[in-house]
Order: sequence, then C-alpha cells, then structure tokens
Amino acid sequence: MEIQPRRPTGRGPAEYFAGDVLIDPVLQSTTSGLAVNEVRFSPGARTAWHAHGKGQTLVVTDGEGRVQTRGEGAVAIRAGDVVLTPADEWHWHGAAPDRYMAHLSITEGGIEWGDQVTDADYGAAG
Amino acid sequence: MEIQPRRPTGRGPAEYFAGDVLIDPVLQSTTSGLAVNEVRFSPGARTAWHAHGKGQTLVVTDGEGRVQTRGEGAVAIRAGDVVLTPADEWHWHGAAPDRYMAHLSITEGGIEWGDQVTDADYGAAG
Repeated sequence: MEIQPRRPTGRGPAEYFAGDVLIDPVLQSTTSGLAVNEVRFSPGARTAWHAHGKGQTLVVTDGEGRVQTRGEGAVAIRAGDVVLTPADEWHWHGAAPDRYMAHLSITEGGIEWGDQVTDADYGAAG
Repeated sequence: MEIQPRRPTGRGPAEYFAGDVLIDPVLQSTTSGLAVNEVRFSPGARTAWHAHGKGQTLVVTDGEGRVQTRGEGAVAIRAGDVVLTPADEWHWHGAAPDRYMAHLSITEGGIEWGDQVTDADYGAAG
C-alpha cells in the first residue's frame, strides 16, 4: 500500500481549453489507461471539441455547466449529474456562462482533440 | 451522450462493513469492470478485511481515517491523500475513531471479502 499526497493542480492548456480551467490529477494508470481528473471551470470556460477512444464519464460535483454532442443542441448539467459519452463521440463540456462548474472526469482510452468551441457556438448553447 | 441523475445512496451491508457507511455509486462499467463509488464513513465505521483482484485507488475527499495492510501497522489518512493498494493485498479502510471520513473508491476488478476488523485491531490502529 502506498499513500501519496495529491499532485499539484495544473492549468488546462490553451491549446485544448478556453478560459480558466484547473485540473487536479487524481489517478493515471499506466496499465489500464484509466485516468481520473478533477476539473474546475470558471464561468465561460470550456474544453475544445474532442472525442475519447473508449468514452468518458463525467460526474458533476459542483455548479452548473453545459455539454454538447456534435450535431445536437447543448444541454445544461448540474451538480449530481453523470454524463456518459460513448467512444469516438465528438463533444465539449464546460461551465455555464455565469456559473462555475466542477466535474470528475473518468476516461479509459486516448483522446483526440479538435477545434475550439467558438463563442457563437458556446453562446448558442443551452 | 446520456445524462443521468445520481443513483440513490446505499448503506454498506453489515456483512462487509461495521458502523454507519453510506455508498453513492458513481460509475459501474460492465465492459471494463471499472467501479467508482463515493463512500462516507461515520466515526469508527470501517470496511471488513478485503482484497481487490486488480487493486484499488482511494482518494480521500473529506475528514480523517485509517488504513491497514495485513501484517503492517495502521496509518492515518486525511483529505487529499491518495491510497494505492496493489492487486490481492488484504487491507481495510475506514474513519478515525472520532472523525468522519469520505473517500472516492476506484477499482477495476473483483473483490474478495474476509473477516470484520475487530475492535481490538481497530483500536490498536493509528
């Protein structure tokens, strides 16, 4: 058994995120590819469009945010919601324009990144 | 994409837990065997001895608790600690005698349960 302190909080890189995003790595398994992160979005902050090779589960732990699947409308998510995104489905997630949002992100595969979510798309969301 | 509300909070069954333990299922993957739960222990509450077929990661999110590997002394864990237990290592975890403790539990395999942790063992811990 090994007890580790939490690793330092990182910032979401501008290449993949817009706005202020803080990322706390919780677990990164080199054997299974399982990755767990706590991610905190300031109001208006969001990921770029992306897809996960084995899907992703988000557990919204605080605040209110938005998620959108490519080709569908954006929807609101709130603390307590669990968001299941299947493998290879393009989507983005982030805070609401006027609300902080935190979620736990659980993924088991690789990630493919695309374009940033435009203000027009984001503003049209929700 | 599918958005689900959180499932109801369950109680840790008396067969595997001692004291008041509340379990919130976060994620249960039928494909990978990945299971994520939020577990909240009242002071003095703890698991029975058990081992995980693929190991377990605990992320202590609140309060103070104790963990013990069979054959070793118990140690204190506090909010912010990450506890990595390898596959097939017998251990238990729970709250401190006078402190609430909550952790996120992340496992990828099956679980084997053993005896309850005796008051003598628990009292000797920490």
